[in-house]
Amino acid sequence: MYPQSPLMGQMMNQPLLVSSILDFAARHYANSEIVSQRVEGDLHRYTFRDCQQRAKRLANALHGLGVRMGDRVATLAWNGYRHMEAYYGVSGSGAVLHTLNPRLHPDQLAYICNHAEDQYLLFDFCFLPLVEAFAPLCKGIKGFILFGAADRMPAETKIPNLLCYEDLINSHSPEYEWPLFDENSACTLCYTSGTTGNPKGALYSHRSTVLHAYGSAMPNALNVSSRDTVMPVVPMFHVNAWGLPYSVPLSGAKMVFPGPALDGKSVYELMEKEQVTFSAGVPTVWLGLINHALQNKLKFSSFRRTVIGGSACPPAMMSTLIDEFDVEVIHAWGMTEMSPLGTAGGLLTKHLDMSKEEQRKILQKQGHAIYGVDMKIADDDGKELPWDGVSYGHLLVKGPWIISRYFKGEGGDVLENGWFPTGDVATIDPDGFMQITDRSKDVIKSGGEWIGTIDLENVAMSHPAVMQAACIGVAHPKWDERPLLVVVLRPGQDLKREDLLAHFQGKVAKWWLPDDVVFADALPVGGTGKIQKNKLREQYRDYRLPTA
Amino acid sequence: MYPQSPLMGQMMNQPLLVSSILDFAARHYANSEIVSQRVEGDLHRYTFRDCQQRAKRLANALHGLGVRMGDRVATLAWNGYRHMEAYYGVSGSGAVLHTLNPRLHPDQLAYICNHAEDQYLLFDFCFLPLVEAFAPLCKGIKGFILFGAADRMPAETKIPNLLCYEDLINSHSPEYEWPLFDENSACTLCYTSGTTGNPKGALYSHRSTVLHAYGSAMPNALNVSSRDTVMPVVPMFHVNAWGLPYSVPLSGAKMVFPGPALDGKSVYELMEKEQVTFSAGVPTVWLGLINHALQNKLKFSSFRRTVIGGSACPPAMMSTLIDEFDVEVIHAWGMTEMSPLGTAGGLLTKHLDMSKEEQRKILQKQGHAIYGVDMKIADDDGKELPWDGVSYGHLLVKGPWIISRYFKGEGGDVLENGWFPTGDVATIDPDGFMQITDRSKDVIKSGGEWIGTIDLENVAMSHPAVMQAACIGVAHPKWDERPLLVVVLRPGQDLKREDLLAHFQGKVAKWWLPDDVVFADALPVGGTGKIQKNKLREQYRDYRLPTA
Ligand SMILES: Nc1ncnc2c1ncn2[C@@H]1O[C@H](COP(=O)(O)OP(=O)(O)OP(=O)(O)O)[C@@H](O)[C@H]1O
Ligand SMILES: Nc1ncnc2c1ncn2[C@@H]1O[C@H](COP(=O)(O)OP(=O)(O)OP(=O)(O)O)[C@@H](O)[C@H]1O
Ligand SMILES: [Mg+2]
Ligand SMILES: [Mg+2]
Repeated sequence: MYPQSPLMGQMMNQPLLVSSILDFAARHYANSEIVSQRVEGDLHRYTFRDCQQRAKRLANALHGLGVRMGDRVATLAWNGYRHMEAYYGVSGSGAVLHTLNPRLHPDQLAYICNHAEDQYLLFDFCFLPLVEAFAPLCKGIKGFILFGAADRMPAETKIPNLLCYEDLINSHSPEYEWPLFDENSACTLCYTSGTTGNPKGALYSHRSTVLHAYGSAMPNALNVSSRDTVMPVVPMFHVNAWGLPYSVPLSGAKMVFPGPALDGKSVYELMEKEQVTFSAGVPTVWLGLINHALQNKLKFSSFRRTVIGGSACPPAMMSTLIDEFDVEVIHAWGMTEMSPLGTAGGLLTKHLDMSKEEQRKILQKQGHAIYGVDMKIADDDGKELPWDGVSYGHLLVKGPWIISRYFKGEGGDVLENGWFPTGDVATIDPDGFMQITDRSKDVIKSGGEWIGTIDLENVAMSHPAVMQAACIGVAHPKWDERPLLVVVLRPGQDLKREDLLAHFQGKVAKWWLPDDVVFADALPVGGTGKIQKNKLREQYRDYRLPTA
Repeated sequence: MYPQSPLMGQMMNQPLLVSSILDFAARHYANSEIVSQRVEGDLHRYTFRDCQQRAKRLANALHGLGVRMGDRVATLAWNGYRHMEAYYGVSGSGAVLHTLNPRLHPDQLAYICNHAEDQYLLFDFCFLPLVEAFAPLCKGIKGFILFGAADRMPAETKIPNLLCYEDLINSHSPEYEWPLFDENSACTLCYTSGTTGNPKGALYSHRSTVLHAYGSAMPNALNVSSRDTVMPVVPMFHVNAWGLPYSVPLSGAKMVFPGPALDGKSVYELMEKEQVTFSAGVPTVWLGLINHALQNKLKFSSFRRTVIGGSACPPAMMSTLIDEFDVEVIHAWGMTEMSPLGTAGGLLTKHLDMSKEEQRKILQKQGHAIYGVDMKIADDDGKELPWDGVSYGHLLVKGPWIISRYFKGEGGDVLENGWFPTGDVATIDPDGFMQITDRSKDVIKSGGEWIGTIDLENVAMSHPAVMQAACIGVAHPKWDERPLLVVVLRPGQDLKREDLLAHFQGKVAKWWLPDDVVFADALPVGGTGKIQKNKLREQYRDYRLPTA
């Protein structure tokens, strides 16, 4: 592909394969633990070495079932040790792990399974009704493997070829040599969240996964060390839990899986019990935890750091975590198409002397590219824009853990001169800090100028009565589009349109002020907890602004 | 080479090239500084972006001189910004950087240059006499480029084709696109320290260098972040300053080069002036700094962490740094053949409650393999030994930044079943901590049992009157070999043989006790500051032990 030098290096030729990550943990941090809150209700605890042994049994079992290199094997499961075994047992053997989001509609699940051509499906037994609902629509799936022991198997079921995971792997040996193969072979298949349209598949390679694991473990990114206890709250079906199933064993850290118990109380108690130091999740999951801790006047005894991403972290949330709980917040940005990590926030040395408010402004940016990722911003004509912290434009990225096309070529040639267009709009400042101002599809075009909706939503959410806010563009006869703010109030709170608009005074440019406010009971939310603005736009398509 | 999956990943195909590291720093941390104590005597200061521009000028200049992909270009220089430009200007353009150790004898330098077939040599002007001494022996070198401006050029010289670096690069444009080529192309050539024999060449690839940079920057290894100010005291001619010229820009940290001023006072003052947080070097360089600080009752205001490796860090030195100066010590092990980092020390969570003494014992181990590196210990027959912390054997390693053979095939097939034999003897404990007990060549074979010399030397050096100690095996009629301890006392100290031997009581097994002690004025030291035990053994070949 690329020209060779007349003089080649003389280093060991070893492919970057994810199996080497689990082997590393099992060998070099053999006593590091994986603790899982199980669907069964209890807490399960074993070592990376145990995980490796069972992943190898699974690899043998899959081979016995006829799964071969490149075949897709799907999972439908919460974060837990069996899911972890599937991560390695499937990909390590050369097959392709395809993680499914149980929050999707059965029709969507069937669409994705058929699109992926999954051969087998491994699933948590709590999802049996869901699997029963879409299994008949997936004729290609040869077998369904229930994550559990024989006593969890249903007496009768409509599912054809239902297998018991524990029986299956226990009937196979842990003796298994991970095959060595080309590192560009497919490793995992993830579909995008479907926030802006139909989900599209990203097909990661072993190489991209290992490089992403290196990049994301580094001090400027997630900063995972062997002294950490890491709880991925972000689901393993959401872009591989941001790579933590790879970056944690590679770091020898202890891993704590919350299973299905994601409410504030359960997460808090598990964190304290297992002395979690580091976690990761989308903004919405932190709401519950923060509320639980505030209401019960609880503090964290070990929790020191969390990564928040997937959508913009509201400044109010960041402040609560830092000021009330002394938890450092790393604001990260990424996307399914990027494995997913692209940037991570943090201060530079020169910021350490700044006031808390000034520091907070820096921490709210999505931060620096992780080495491996390059980024730029460009205008509608593709002209690169300056890194002045003010100019905003389409954000484009490139790097070895970014897709070059979607699975099955969906959407055609997506790259622009080798760069992947993220669909996000951003600024980059002279120190290299990137800040997302909006998605291209959500940006409001008012009289030829752009209004970023994230800023407006953050201001609204900084009002104590507001729980959630979404800003959308609504048709306007003079300006084409003007902002409409849709707000969900906290339980028991009351707030007048005028008072909320007054709260914006001095916080945004005058012409950015929303033209109207609508109070709603809830916002439409997708399978990964993101607000579906396309649905919201549909809903308010004929809304008549008072200014119109 | 390795089989491909029927389903390949669909990620961007981007080679791992070192040029991308400098580009990353110049783009994303454009304002990060490189500060250099120059051979000229002053302090020089610029940004990574400036460094990139000058490295590109150099790449254009080298092309103009006819340097092509795979050609070797040598450097003979202290740690400084021009050396950094050569790192990237040479390797980035596809040529191969070959760093020379100015502490070698001119004959050795000529041997290595000729062996490497260097085309050009870049050198600090202070080395002009040295270059004049060996240039006539290197007919293959087409030109000698003096690191400096025109005013540093000698009025006359015996060196043929002497060029002025500043003039050369200033006459070339900074417009240059780094070429894209196969990541397995050669990047850098380093020769081993020559402690145990003739130096042998290790030829790194771009891939191995980038992977090593990722691995070594991680929290479990050097833990470099953008908030660090890093001073590599370890020379850039000693295994690429342990990769810091790559791992530091990749982390966006500030870099401080000490140039030729490596005495305690200079290092201390530069550290304070530039607020260095992190450094790296072999044990001997820390002696001067520690003595200077102790004698003048100085503390460090910013220095928090240092990596010590290259030979075993004496426990007494570690204790002084931690207890007196509150500097964390990371004990690292590596070798030229490993790019060089293999393992790094540190505590696990379960050690945090231990007593200081128990923790110190863990920190004195060379630590955990860095992900990418695998290791094992084996007996003389190649049988793998248990990880029990007691069994010791030959240490073997493998991984993508470990050589598969020496440059030009020197020494033939060096791998054993795909593993590289390090020539070191080690234990590994159940938690994965590796500890070097000796070099295979230095181990003392007493009646069929092995005595590790590092332990004996550490005990000797824990005596306050002892500055340096080396233990060697001397022929013994009954036991084949028995230990002789050669000791250099601190200035003004006096110590009796019996008192030193009494100091060993209870600290080592009885049969490990040295059979005799010899006091010497100095120990033979090689170009990288390591004690040359082969010379010592030669010197005491006919020594008659009192027990013989
Ligand atoms: N820290 C963040 N701040 C703001 N937005 C973020 C952040 N992290 C992620 N995002 C948003 O999430 C997107 C990536 O999300 P993901 O890949 O999960 O699917 P999606 O874009 O929501 O769905 P689809 O692409 O199917 O419409 C980014 O493009 C960006 O818009
Ligand atoms: N932390 C450490 N503790 C003990 N020994 C170490 C440590 N780090 C490195 N070493 C020793 O240094 C060796 C690697 O050194 P290097 O590659 O610089 O050349 P050398 O082995 O001294 O020279 P040559 O191979 O030419 O004889 C290791 O094999 C080991 O013996
Ligand atoms: Mg998207
Ligand atoms: Mg050696």
